[in-house]
Amino acid sequence: MAGLRFDISMSLDGFVAGPNQSEENPLGEGGIQLHEWALELAAWRRPHGEAGGEVNASTEVVEESLGNVGATVMGRNMFGGEGPWGDDPWDGWWGDDPPFHMPVFIVTHHAREPVIKEGGTTFTFVTDGIESALEEARAAAAGKDVALGGGANVAQQYLKAGLIDEMQLHVVPVVLGAGARLFDNLDGAEISLKCTRAVVAPGVTHLRFRVGE
Amino acid sequence: MAGLRFDISMSLDGFVAGPNQSEENPLGEGGIQLHEWALELAAWRRPHGEAGGEVNASTEVVEESLGNVGATVMGRNMFGGEGPWGDDPWDGWWGDDPPFHMPVFIVTHHAREPVIKEGGTTFTFVTDGIESALEEARAAAAGKDVALGGGANVAQQYLKAGLIDEMQLHVVPVVLGAGARLFDNLDGAEISLKCTRAVVAPGVTHLRFRVGE
Repeated sequence: MAGLRFDISMSLDGFVAGPNQSEENPLGEGGIQLHEWALELAAWRRPHGEAGGEVNASTEVVEESLGNVGATVMGRNMFGGEGPWGDDPWDGWWGDDPPFHMPVFIVTHHAREPVIKEGGTTFTFVTDGIESALEEARAAAAGKDVALGGGANVAQQYLKAGLIDEMQLHVVPVVLGAGARLFDNLDGAEISLKCTRAVVAPGVTHLRFRVGE
Repeated sequence: MAGLRFDISMSLDGFVAGPNQSEENPLGEGGIQLHEWALELAAWRRPHGEAGGEVNASTEVVEESLGNVGATVMGRNMFGGEGPWGDDPWDGWWGDDPPFHMPVFIVTHHAREPVIKEGGTTFTFVTDGIESALEEARAAAAGKDVALGGGANVAQQYLKAGLIDEMQLHVVPVVLGAGARLFDNLDGAEISLKCTRAVVAPGVTHLRFRVGE
């Protein structure tokens, strides 16, 4: 069966977002520092519809993380809101042509009709839990891997349930001091990991893990 | 000037010791997991007076971290106690022939005569702060580097003061969930780091950083 892969940027002190996340600043204060390594890369700009950019040791890592992925699962906060959605619901952070270009399944408590965007991205809202969202994503992925998009809360649920097969931490050498921790709310779940690769790149070190080994 | 180098094992969730550290269990509950990668290595057993052991990708990292070091600084807890020392003071965790084989300077509030051990290890107690302990260690190191031995509390003081030149985190892929965090009590100090090397080895990934760049 195709795997569930999870990529996330994390500070050296374990934060995946800064403090005081809000609709205006979903990354939290200082959280943008966790993503600066990626923003100038050609491999990042291309799926976002922008030309040019840098090529460095992160390029191969990013291309690999975007490759062979047939569907994405994410939490409601990463889509852009909590619901209830109302009559004229917001379509999230991602604009008319989101960078996913594949089916995306949102874990939420609030039902909503699917949203179809340009460029192959569809947002489908799943209200009966993380396993169900993963099942739907697997079916849509048609043999390719499923990517877990975050944020921290939904990632913790998948980690705790033992459903992630491969995790890649993009470790950014900053100390945020506060914010949302990745390894939190796990209630003592046994998580067994094995590092399979480390790549040092400008502003980031990419650590890949097999989970559950 | 020779540098101050700091090596420490850390869990994926940022802990350098488990919860409930005590004189009986200085590593805290579950803390031994952070050190298992090292215990069977020949490069670790040798300075501890034991023959045999494994050779793997960690060997070179450990040999390098022990090489070109002329003196060590550590906190009172890592030595083995807080003081006041009394008339018949305990000599710490380290036995008659400690693995350091060099001058060691203990940051403490309680004065005490130096303790001279077998194999070249001396313990000198410094009561006037971390800068003073580092100065004494630099003089004793005679041009070689100084190693900062830990634990977390004294490491945080040196990090906050910007006195560490090179840090190596031995990242162990376990989630402890509780304990002593390395990047804590830093009071928002700006800490600037650059990863210069990553080595994947059995049970650990070694990340080396230049500090203050």
